Amino acid sequence: MKDITELLGIRYPIIQGGMAWVAEYHLAAAVSKGGGLGLIASGSADADFVRGQVQAVRERTDRPFGVNIMMMNPLADDLMQLVIDEKVPAITTGAGNPGKYIPALKEAGVIVIPVVASAALAKRMERAGADAIVAEGCEAGGHIGEITTMNLVPQVADAVKIPVIAAGGIATGRQAAAAFLLGAKGLQVGTRFLAATEAQVAQSYKDRVLAASDTDTVVTGRSTGHPVRVLKNKLMREILSREKEGIDPEEFENLMAGTLRKAVVDGDTDFGSLMAGQSAGLVTKEQPAAEIMEEIMREMREAYASLGAYFAAN
Amino acid sequence: MKDITELLGIRYPIIQGGMAWVAEYHLAAAVSKGGGLGLIASGSADADFVRGQVQAVRERTDRPFGVNIMMMNPLADDLMQLVIDEKVPAITTGAGNPGKYIPALKEAGVIVIPVVASAALAKRMERAGADAIVAEGCEAGGHIGEITTMNLVPQVADAVKIPVIAAGGIATGRQAAAAFLLGAKGLQVGTRFLAATEAQVAQSYKDRVLAASDTDTVVTGRSTGHPVRVLKNKLMREILSREKEGIDPEEFENLMAGTLRKAVVDGDTDFGSLMAGQSAGLVTKEQPAAEIMEEIMREMREAYASLGAYFAAN
Repeated sequence: MKDITELLGIRYPIIQGGMAWVAEYHLAAAVSKGGGLGLIASGSADADFVRGQVQAVRERTDRPFGVNIMMMNPLADDLMQLVIDEKVPAITTGAGNPGKYIPALKEAGVIVIPVVASAALAKRMERAGADAIVAEGCEAGGHIGEITTMNLVPQVADAVKIPVIAAGGIATGRQAAAAFLLGAKGLQVGTRFLAATEAQVAQSYKDRVLAASDTDTVVTGRSTGHPVRVLKNKLMREILSREKEGIDPEEFENLMAGTLRKAVVDGDTDFGSLMAGQSAGLVTKEQPAAEIMEEIMREMREAYASLGAYFAAN
Repeated sequence: MKDITELLGIRYPIIQGGMAWVAEYHLAAAVSKGGGLGLIASGSADADFVRGQVQAVRERTDRPFGVNIMMMNPLADDLMQLVIDEKVPAITTGAGNPGKYIPALKEAGVIVIPVVASAALAKRMERAGADAIVAEGCEAGGHIGEITTMNLVPQVADAVKIPVIAAGGIATGRQAAAAFLLGAKGLQVGTRFLAATEAQVAQSYKDRVLAASDTDTVVTGRSTGHPVRVLKNKLMREILSREKEGIDPEEFENLMAGTLRKAVVDGDTDFGSLMAGQSAGLVTKEQPAAEIMEEIMREMREAYASLGAYFAAN
């Protein structure tokens, strides 16, 4: 099995989460420059917008980077063509099955890494030709599945032969080392990069992440079948109480519409969607992306050494 | 900080989960005999019943064992007195604050280990005089909190100085090693012991655990504020659909009443509460408790060695 650094041509086995609105070219370029795989989140954007983002990353670094594509985006066809035309080194995909695009992507040399939340879907993606898999636990921020990182990663690692990248609530080197023990060959980091110096995220949103404790996230949308993890605020308290009474899915969508932009761009911490993982409680300072990755790698080795000390003594 | 093996006088840093109906003297004695800390779950039982269980464990082994006490049991006062009178080596506590009992317990030499689901509660328990803490992630079977093991354990370990025992979805040595990297000094194992040879659990229930995949658990009771993780079956599909329509908490309680006994004792896999953690997908064989612990310890060392190989190569 190829290591994820070898597969992607990167220095550290770290890829950045494809966070809508947050994962734009400043952050992606900083992560790639720093030795990881930076990602542009295409969200519901069109090909022209994403082309501009791709070019902006390339102006800043010649290192590998990627684009995240949501399969439910009606413009997914165009985005896949763009990725092929622009020879984007890698893509991650969410919310659907990229299988039908994989032959053309592989022919163009694009590395394809679907994000999954179950072992069965991981197997399906491997059969479709995926190069690696992101196994994302339910402690992640934003749209989530039901299985935790501690349980998803080993079950996906047992199910497939392609490399598994652990995601969901991983912000520190201790957790990174733990994920490797569970069978991961790489990490996807979201929330900690959201608070990176280079992330174009309203300071008030970053400050809420930095101040958060372990119990500060909630999950909305469970009643509609589309769970999303966010920091508690006025909007989310309102939505959760409406969900308890039994909210109509359409009304739920209306209440959520535009709220992520409101958080990231406008910095509205009361009525914006402050997407964040449970690891927000472990993210305590704003740092450059490169420093974050160096720290994670250093802490990984330290955590490993301390476990060695435990075994030597027992 | 004392190691958990030293604190409890046991060979392996493994304690058995206090699973109601499942954790009775056969299983507890087998775990204690095998080198871990076996536990008797007192559930809603009275002191006489628990005294019989304690004596039955003592007839089988002279090694340390414990009793799990639910603080919401109206008979908690009696059970605490029983533990003191019988000089039970250790207790774990759930569903409430055992603080007021701690001085008397400590005077009697009983080791007190509350089970918590947040860093704030762990801190409160430490201040109250707890000897160690079980930090239980939401992937656990039965009554659960909201934070995953991967995120709860490091945040609790950062918050307290007493030893942290990781719980929630831990069934294998890889996960055990991961938990140690996250800051744990010991493990609580539930679901895997539920399928132990010595566990007095209907074979049909064990078989459902052994056959489960990663996606086979669901959480009922989120709408009533008392979430419980169980394997999917007819009863749970019915309850989940009723919860979606907005079920009355009292009606919910009526639907659940007696269903755990129905699963454990009667083996009714359709209408019983098949409590199990997400690690059910990793539990694939029925084994003696002692063998389970030996395997976890061996796998821990193997996982650690393989991470060493990774660092040597990178």
